[in-house]
Parts: sequence; C-alpha cells; structure tokens
Amino acid sequence: MNNEQIMEIRKEFPFLDEEKMGRKIVYFDNGATSQKPKCVIDALSNYYSYQNANPHRGAHYLGMLATEMYEDARKKVKDFINASSVDEIVFVRNTTEALNLIAYSYALDKLKKGDEIVLSIYEHHSNLVTWQYVAQKTGAILKYVYLNEKHELDMESYKNILSEKTKLVALAGASNTVGGVIDVKEVTRLAHEVGAVVSIDAAQLSPHLRIDVKDWDVDFISFSGHKMYAPMGIGVMYCKYEILDSMVPFMYGGDMIEYVYEQTTTYAKPAAKFEAGTQNVGGAIALAAAIDFMERIGVDNIHKHELELTDYAYKKMSELDFVEIYSTPSYVRSPLIAFNIKGVHSHDVSTVLDTFDIAIRTGHHCAMPLHSHIHQNSTCRASFAVYNTFEEIDFFIEKLKEVRKVMGYGS
Amino acid sequence: MNNEQIMEIRKEFPFLDEEKMGRKIVYFDNGATSQKPKCVIDALSNYYSYQNANPHRGAHYLGMLATEMYEDARKKVKDFINASSVDEIVFVRNTTEALNLIAYSYALDKLKKGDEIVLSIYEHHSNLVTWQYVAQKTGAILKYVYLNEKHELDMESYKNILSEKTKLVALAGASNTVGGVIDVKEVTRLAHEVGAVVSIDAAQLSPHLRIDVKDWDVDFISFSGHKMYAPMGIGVMYCKYEILDSMVPFMYGGDMIEYVYEQTTTYAKPAAKFEAGTQNVGGAIALAAAIDFMERIGVDNIHKHELELTDYAYKKMSELDFVEIYSTPSYVRSPLIAFNIKGVHSHDVSTVLDTFDIAIRTGHHCAMPLHSHIHQNSTCRASFAVYNTFEEIDFFIEKLKEVRKVMGYGS
Repeated sequence: MNNEQIMEIRKEFPFLDEEKMGRKIVYFDNGATSQKPKCVIDALSNYYSYQNANPHRGAHYLGMLATEMYEDARKKVKDFINASSVDEIVFVRNTTEALNLIAYSYALDKLKKGDEIVLSIYEHHSNLVTWQYVAQKTGAILKYVYLNEKHELDMESYKNILSEKTKLVALAGASNTVGGVIDVKEVTRLAHEVGAVVSIDAAQLSPHLRIDVKDWDVDFISFSGHKMYAPMGIGVMYCKYEILDSMVPFMYGGDMIEYVYEQTTTYAKPAAKFEAGTQNVGGAIALAAAIDFMERIGVDNIHKHELELTDYAYKKMSELDFVEIYSTPSYVRSPLIAFNIKGVHSHDVSTVLDTFDIAIRTGHHCAMPLHSHIHQNSTCRASFAVYNTFEEIDFFIEKLKEVRKVMGYGS
Repeated sequence: MNNEQIMEIRKEFPFLDEEKMGRKIVYFDNGATSQKPKCVIDALSNYYSYQNANPHRGAHYLGMLATEMYEDARKKVKDFINASSVDEIVFVRNTTEALNLIAYSYALDKLKKGDEIVLSIYEHHSNLVTWQYVAQKTGAILKYVYLNEKHELDMESYKNILSEKTKLVALAGASNTVGGVIDVKEVTRLAHEVGAVVSIDAAQLSPHLRIDVKDWDVDFISFSGHKMYAPMGIGVMYCKYEILDSMVPFMYGGDMIEYVYEQTTTYAKPAAKFEAGTQNVGGAIALAAAIDFMERIGVDNIHKHELELTDYAYKKMSELDFVEIYSTPSYVRSPLIAFNIKGVHSHDVSTVLDTFDIAIRTGHHCAMPLHSHIHQNSTCRASFAVYNTFEEIDFFIEKLKEVRKVMGYGS
C-alpha cells in the first residue's frame, strides 16, 4: 500500500484524531491490543442502540434480528478462517478462554499419564500455564521445543521431540515476543504423522496472516478479537467438528442444554454446547465488522505493510549499537520487535518514550520462561498495525537515542 | 416516579426512537436482556475511540488510562453491592460464567461424597446444570426446595432441608419465571447456622433491587451486566475475600500468575487470580456507566416503578378468564409475569403479539424442571424495566385479547 492509502486508513481511527485526543500518539503496543476503526465502534454502538436482544430465545422482531446478526457473525468468522461449517466456530471471551476450553473439554478428558504435550519455550502464559494444569491433573508430560539462532522455533528439535507418546502439540502460530511465525501446515502434518492433535494459539497470527484451517488441516485454532481491530471480550475457538462433537462441556448453563431434569441433563450439539449463557452478541457483531475492515484492505496487504514497517525498524534499530534485539531478523514474521537498551531498564525506556507520546510495551509479555531462556528479566516491545507509518518509526528511532541521553549515556 | 420522569428516562433509550427504529416497540423482554441507555452506549464508544489499551501492562498514557478506568469500574461495582474490598469483585462474562467459576474453583475442590447442595426447583439452568456437574464429579447430592401456593420458595421446606450435610446453598435471588424474591439475609443466616456457604444467582435481582452483601452476609453473588442496562459480555462474581483467597484457579493464562517456570507456576492474589487474559475492559467501563444510570434514578425508584407496572399488569391479566398466571401475586417480587393463554400455544401468543410490535418471551425460560413442576411445556413471560409504561401495559392487555380472537376463540 502506498502512503496515501495508509493516510486514508488512519482517518478511520478515532484515536488518531489529534484534536479529540489532545495529543498525537505513536501507538506501537498493537501486540497487546489494537486500536479500533470507526466502522467497528459504530457496529457496536448501532447494535446496542437499535438491534439489541437476547438471541436464540425470542420470537419477536429484535430477538430474531439479534439471532440473525449473531449467526451471521459466526458465518463471517467461518469464512475468514476457511472452516467447513459454522458449527465449528465457538465464540469465547478471548484466546485464553479458548485455550482453557480446549484444556478442560478435550485434554483433561482424553489425556492420560505419560502422554506428552509439546510446547515451545516462547509460549504466552495462556498457552503454557493451562497445559501445566492439564499435566498436573492427568500425569501428562510437558516437552519444550527451544529456539534456533534466529530466535525461531527450531524445527529439527520439533521433529525430534515428536513421538507416538505425543498426544497434543500446542504452539503459538506467531510469538508475541520473538516474532517468528511457524509453518502451521508443516507442523500439523508432522504432528498428525505421530497421531497427535494440534492446537494453534493464533492470537498474534489472526491480525496479520491469512488463516486457512482447511489447508493447514489444523485441529484447533484460538484467537481474540481485540488484537485484530475488534472490541475486547470476544474471541474464537475453532475446532474440527468431529473432535468438537466428542468433547465434554466446559461451562454449564442455558443454551448448551437439550433437556434438563432435576438430576440429569442432555446437551445440545456444537457450537451451542460450548456457549453457555448469554453471549457477547455486540462483541461478535463488532468482530464481524472488524473482519469486514480487514478484508476490505486485504489481509495480505495489511501484513505486507506491517512487514515493511518491521523490516525498516529492524534495520534502523540494528544500526544502534546500544540496542539489543531479541526478535527474529526474518522478513516473514509477525510485526513486532523485542529489544533492550543497554544499561537502561525496559520500564525506564517506555516511561521516557511515553513523554514523547510513543506507546510501547515492557515487561515479560506474559512469557516468563522465554525471558529466562534469553536471560532477560524484561524487554521492550514495539509492535505494529496497519495504521502505523514509516514516519512514526523514524520518530521512534530518534527518541530511542534520546532515551540513552536522558539516562545519562551521552549521545 | 411520575409519568413525566419516565418520559424523560425513555428519551435516553435509542431503541425508543420510533423514527430511527421505524417502529414503536413495546419491549417486555427485559428478563432476557434490557435495552441500553445512551450514556452506556457512549461510554463504550468513547472507550474504544479515545481510551483503549490493554490494562495492567503498559507504562504509557493509554495503558495507564485504561487501567485506571477498569479499576474504577471495579470500585463502582464494589460500592454498588456494598462489598468490603475491590479484591472481592471478579469480572466475568456473565452470570453463567460466575456460577461455573464458583463450581470449578470452590465446589469441585471443597465438596465431597455425601455433601448436600440445596437448590430451588425454579433455578435457571445455569444455577442447576452446573451443580449437577459438581454432584456428578464429587458425589455430592442435589436437594430441591419446591414452591408454596404463591409460587414462591417454600421457607418451611427450606428450613427442613437444611442439615449439617448441607455444604452449599445455591439459590436464585429472584426467579426468572415465577418472580418471587427470596429474603437473602434470612436464607443466608439459616444456611450459616448449619455451616453451609451461600451462593446467590442475582441475575434477576441486580437490575431491580439493592444488593447489600455486607448486610446479607452472603458468600457469593453473581450477576450479568446485560440485564441491568449494560452491554453483553460483562458480569460480576462477588465472593468474600477469605473464601476467594482459598479457591483454586479456574482459567489459566496471563495476569493470573505471579511467577511462571517451565514446569510450575505460582498464582496472583484475587481478584487478578480469577481474571486470566485480556478482560472485557470496554464492558466493565460500560457496566460502571450503567450503575451510574441506575444510581442517578435510584435503584429503589426503579424497583418501585417496575412493581407498580407489574401489579397493574397482574390485576389486568387476572381479570381475563382465558389467562393462566404462574408467577407470584405478591407485590414484592421481580417485575415479570409468566402466563399462558388457554388453548393457545405460547409461541403463537408471542408471534401474534410481535405483529403488534410487542416483544415478550416464550419457552421454558431456561427453567425446564420448574416447567415440569408446574406441568407446562412452555409459558409466555412479560418482564418490565424502568422505561416501560402503564400505557404499554394497556396496549398489551388489549392485544392479548386479540390473540384469542386471531386464534379463533371469538371475543
């Protein structure tokens, strides 16, 4: 996309309205949550103004409208990730809930002592602590794949770790810190060869890359709306129908039942079986609007722009001898860079940058084992989205130099 | 409140804008979900436009703003229900998730074979199927309290059912079908006498009655935002801190941890311990706006108006010999009436009423065991909120008569 197109896209984001905001923010914290375009905010606002009702329950105008809109949102998600059926799309709160749903409804029920779960060392806590719990409850064993010299998943180690004992491969499709993206199709093919199912944490994938569950043949995919231009409180768990239908319920309540008696209950079929109680209908509708937004620009165009930004930032940052980078140098990656400034604590870096209205993240990014592995207590992370510009990166680089000065290192 | 005040309140609700809606809807499906005032929709919209970030993680302007707003929302909820500490307020998706959290984190961990869980026959499935699951997993036994002649919880039976075997009393504070409200303070006092903890499903209570957890001395309270003028996807689980702190985690992931190693993890203190992953921050902020809306009018004023409407509707409906009512005749109750028209299926009633733009609910209202108990497959339900009027009830009564005619019963 050219600069003019990006400028048009920027106009759709209220947070970039300097007058209303009273400041001009360079928002490089997209890996934590993206900002939202007007079309998404309007979808939410219109729903609660003129279309709101509890779906699946009301034989009245608003009830039917809300049902139709909620189920259309499910269809939109199905098409977005190329699933076979809307029944494979479960709406959840966020990626974390999706992964817990897989843990409770699939893994706790089907894994047993000695079975192995394969993770990578760069997993987000949601895709790590959850499996620790499963391991503790079932006696299954967690096996970690470490990084290669480019800070990416080491595929040779992955191949070596797989065996007939492997029952579940649970990997982030893209790391939220080191930035590498895995070849989900190949990872899945190898796992299926040993009879393991594959769950991909796609929280850092869905905002950037085209997901194709049919082509990838992946068993589970989880992602959040809020990192891909949709509101918080809505996410998706995709699961192949055959597996989903074999799973025990997670949350119990209304909508997920078939018949309820005083002492026993029979359950609905998926996806309803996994959507107990009143769902976040406004969130699902706004997620559908976010998908429309992404498809209008083109997921590939979004990613290409983000990669150009990342590549540009990477080169500029590599030229600064006081910057240490922990993310992959590969061009094919998620659009973020984890780094530290030598001699300056990451929190001080972000605090100083904030005085210039530059928003980055610092800390362990919910990936403590990774940080132990790279021997860092915390890192800074700049992460990009479709509305970011080269000009913003230039400003960021300029201010990174000032951070050093402010902290007393001279120029 | 007088008619003028109600008319002013009605102006705050976009769904009552006939021009924008293209119709004049009489919305009597508030028990399923309430409509939302402009202040709530604006809070949501403003958050995603100008205040959005992922809280608790960012040392930057928006991150700190989002954190402050999210925690202010928690404080608002704390004050609303008179809790002792913000650490006792856990944000969840909805009442159903709150009850499942209690089931997984408290009951599954602490109940054992032979322990008794006391429910009423009018529980919503979320407060019933959940405990069936706990009973099945732990060997605990479900004991039901039935109704008195006024379709209310029979307090004598409740007293008789309590024993030293009772470990958990899980009751709806207000029924979503028969409408009775229980004396939570007395119910709790009696349960505590035998050493049981008390969990109140307040989904049908929080939109109407003042909750006071300190005065009631209740152990758990659960409710949803969407029935009390807030958006879907946000709810609250209150729990006394001492109990909450003793509970095992439910969802595993970011924010609920203290330290994470490859094979083990230590957990954060409540409430963070029970809020894994990115929460519905916009939802929490909009819930705070809904509380502001309710407090501005006054919860007691809201309930009084709703009770007057309910009482008026009850009397009018009682005069119709073709109407059978299943809700309590008591004035002190939740503002809803379950009924059937003799000889007409409930779904036909709602379909015909919908042609007059009157929205009511029909079905089993997620309370099948209750419907078995009252020997009805399904019922109609009219449920009221602050924006409803006596004029709307007159219109409803008039059209109820027409339903009979349309279905061939003459006048």
